[in-house]
Amino acid sequence: KAQQYGVTPQSVDFNDWYNEVVKKADLADNSPVAGAMVVKPYGSALWENIVRWLDDRFKATGHESLIFPTLIPMNFITREADHVEGFAPELFTVTKIGTEELAEPYVMRPTSETIIGHMWSGWLNSYRDLPFLHYQWGSVFRAELRTKAFLRTSEFYWHEGHTAHADEAEARAEVRMILDLYHEFCRDVLALPVVRGEKSASERFAGAVSTYSIEGMMRDGKALQSGTSHYLGQAFSRAFDVKFQTREQKEDFAHTTSWAISSRIIGALIMTHGDDAGLMMPPNIAPIQVVIVPVGRKDNFDEMVAEGERLAAQLAQNGVRVKVDKRDGVTNGFKYNDWELKGIPVRIELGPRDLEAGVVVVKNRNSGEKETLERDLAVGGMAERLEGIQAWLLQRATDFMLDNTVTVDNYDDFKAAIEAGKWVRAFHCGEPESEKAIKDETKATVRNVPLDDAEFFAEREEGGVCFHTGKPAAYGKRILFGRQY
Amino acid sequence: KAQQYGVTPQSVDFNDWYNEVVKKADLADNSPVAGAMVVKPYGSALWENIVRWLDDRFKATGHESLIFPTLIPMNFITREADHVEGFAPELFTVTKIGTEELAEPYVMRPTSETIIGHMWSGWLNSYRDLPFLHYQWGSVFRAELRTKAFLRTSEFYWHEGHTAHADEAEARAEVRMILDLYHEFCRDVLALPVVRGEKSASERFAGAVSTYSIEGMMRDGKALQSGTSHYLGQAFSRAFDVKFQTREQKEDFAHTTSWAISSRIIGALIMTHGDDAGLMMPPNIAPIQVVIVPVGRKDNFDEMVAEGERLAAQLAQNGVRVKVDKRDGVTNGFKYNDWELKGIPVRIELGPRDLEAGVVVVKNRNSGEKETLERDLAVGGMAERLEGIQAWLLQRATDFMLDNTVTVDNYDDFKAAIEAGKWVRAFHCGEPESEKAIKDETKATVRNVPLDDAEFFAEREEGGVCFHTGKPAAYGKRILFGRQY
Ligand SMILES: [Zn+2]
Ligand SMILES: [Zn+2]
Repeated sequence: KAQQYGVTPQSVDFNDWYNEVVKKADLADNSPVAGAMVVKPYGSALWENIVRWLDDRFKATGHESLIFPTLIPMNFITREADHVEGFAPELFTVTKIGTEELAEPYVMRPTSETIIGHMWSGWLNSYRDLPFLHYQWGSVFRAELRTKAFLRTSEFYWHEGHTAHADEAEARAEVRMILDLYHEFCRDVLALPVVRGEKSASERFAGAVSTYSIEGMMRDGKALQSGTSHYLGQAFSRAFDVKFQTREQKEDFAHTTSWAISSRIIGALIMTHGDDAGLMMPPNIAPIQVVIVPVGRKDNFDEMVAEGERLAAQLAQNGVRVKVDKRDGVTNGFKYNDWELKGIPVRIELGPRDLEAGVVVVKNRNSGEKETLERDLAVGGMAERLEGIQAWLLQRATDFMLDNTVTVDNYDDFKAAIEAGKWVRAFHCGEPESEKAIKDETKATVRNVPLDDAEFFAEREEGGVCFHTGKPAAYGKRILFGRQY
Repeated sequence: KAQQYGVTPQSVDFNDWYNEVVKKADLADNSPVAGAMVVKPYGSALWENIVRWLDDRFKATGHESLIFPTLIPMNFITREADHVEGFAPELFTVTKIGTEELAEPYVMRPTSETIIGHMWSGWLNSYRDLPFLHYQWGSVFRAELRTKAFLRTSEFYWHEGHTAHADEAEARAEVRMILDLYHEFCRDVLALPVVRGEKSASERFAGAVSTYSIEGMMRDGKALQSGTSHYLGQAFSRAFDVKFQTREQKEDFAHTTSWAISSRIIGALIMTHGDDAGLMMPPNIAPIQVVIVPVGRKDNFDEMVAEGERLAAQLAQNGVRVKVDKRDGVTNGFKYNDWELKGIPVRIELGPRDLEAGVVVVKNRNSGEKETLERDLAVGGMAERLEGIQAWLLQRATDFMLDNTVTVDNYDDFKAAIEAGKWVRAFHCGEPESEKAIKDETKATVRNVPLDDAEFFAEREEGGVCFHTGKPAAYGKRILFGRQY
């Protein structure tokens, strides 16, 4: 009977668990468009919170939003050779308007470096115009065969940051600043511990000089690349003639960057914080932090709802995002299950006898802990309770990541660890052929080379030989391997 | 020399004035994609303010945001006959992914009634599930040959509201509630007086039973339809099988509505509030309400900038959106002109002698009035000053609309009035053939039939015959004609 309400346990089938949670928690649904999803109200409210936090930070760090067209002339995409190679097979292509064939087709943007480069070329004259610190929110389109809500969809949602600078140092500082901003957002808002690092050459963005990522571990041990920040050098500037007069009156091409966090991050959040009962939504991003369930019988249900709304008003006044479950005609068990599945951090039950006694029953979604508290104490202590839940989630995820990462020095141990769903820290020679052979055999790839000041896995070690080829290790430290989403 | 900085005066060429203002005020630029624009930082900041105000109100009135796919299967569009007739020639059509031809093409949404109807059909079972109060923000795509930034672009930005109800009365109440919300937004936030009314049959949305609009008058006398709210009856529900079990255990189709305000509203704002010097941004929506221009010489410029920032901090603390113009190497004249063109409601000049005297020079963009004020008074009185400017703008636009609307009773007077760039109030028989003949000859169309409680032009009059056909008048009142954007 619990099964009837609930979802397949994570331990039975993580994939089924994920798909059921997405649907039953009202996050997203399938659509009739190949590979595209429909984001439902709870998922949309979550995404809006994510957008708002990031948008405020982009503005606070001096960036400006713009809106570029969704369509891009096909010949723009083909102008940067690595770029087209990366995206060509996935491009939705517009060949007609009405019944009229277009002489030059358009593609629906898979990313906007090209058209933004084209526009910049018209806007840029002198070093005084730089930097351009631009970003936009919108959809991008990359055809996917096997889709999975939030994680892999043909249309997904993101911001794409695009900046142009007079020199490499300033551009690289931007790339790093954004990577750190992403890391802070994941840690402090989403309670996601992530490893900051640089991608290996084979895993770079199509057209980039350096790609940095943040990588998180899902509860099945797989990695999810949760954000990227690229230094693009002058490649796109050369392709789109983004040049300027330098302080020294010479002509130079701008050094550009791009960076993104997409709606995939919602997938990361679900797969990091869930348990067998469903989601656990981090309080700092939760659309609803506290749900009040009035527990009445037919004759006093309305009265209990009214009382619930009074309590909600008190909590809202303290800045808590709160909802009263006023549904009639469904059981309390159904309601409890529903809110647990949706991962509301705190549930308050309010019954007639509690009301008389001046108490409420408070239950934390994360620990299952249930307490009967004086009403004023419950209200006054809510902010601290939510902070506690936020910290608990980050700690659980961090412990899980550390517990499931192993250090290996030979290929047999590597394969065993990967097969067991772990991340691996190992020395590697840095050769793309070796990476490819490892990937073909184990499905594991280099997640990243942790930065020296990343909080996890950053230690430098002397010497070391590649666990795979036996050649001298590159990077001066162990790097991170894992299977990925 | 003023001309070098400035724009073509409105009286010389309103169209040139508009295009130059859009570009020089950094609102938007042309793009390499047929008919699509690029919205630049100032335009984007303005749009974000519009989005935030409306979004807060949609949520406050119980609506939920969702995200539906940008693509729609071609066969959805063709399913509702009137709908496809309205949109077919304008549809951007995706026929390929990579090099692979699609068996069934997709169109880029011109609006989303069809795909939303399809999804609702899967979500709706019982009257208990209703109403659905949904909306989404995003782009839509309708090919345009002659484009004009914000007003007529192949890709534009909007919210589209979509709601489903158990009966007609509730659906019609929603349509009206939204129309009133739009009217309030235009009046109180954008300082745009608009006429609420119902469209004639020939001007209805493709597929609607009733279309309501708000119409504003631009400074060249043309009308701009600034928002629409449609009662769609059961047409889309029948086409997409959006049915439910009623309270009486019968089966019925939902009554649906849709409504939108788009990025066209920015065009309305520009063309209502401008003058020969450029824009006048209403304070309640202005990205920047006050600009501080430090007026120093080389030896004390930095000091004046620092002082400007102290002043800005004081204003910001009072909730004023303020910017300090720190640009070095451009003249004060250039700066003044630039901010006037952008329509910043209030400019504060801060010079070394003012600083000594404890005063600042404050200039209102709307009236050109300039005062020297004690600094504390300028800060303390800023909120009231901004309110005054907001009210001034609404009053100017209202006077202009009323002054340029004439009442006529015969076709000769009608033609003369339309030719002179006026709106016309007249009795009309309601026949589509007559509307078409009038449009062919004069380019004027029925703007709307003002609602009985609209604040402008709502008076009922007994009798009356059509100024065009001499037949008995429909509607029981004079209706509104004009040329439109
Ligand atoms: Zn190797
Ligand atoms: Zn007539």
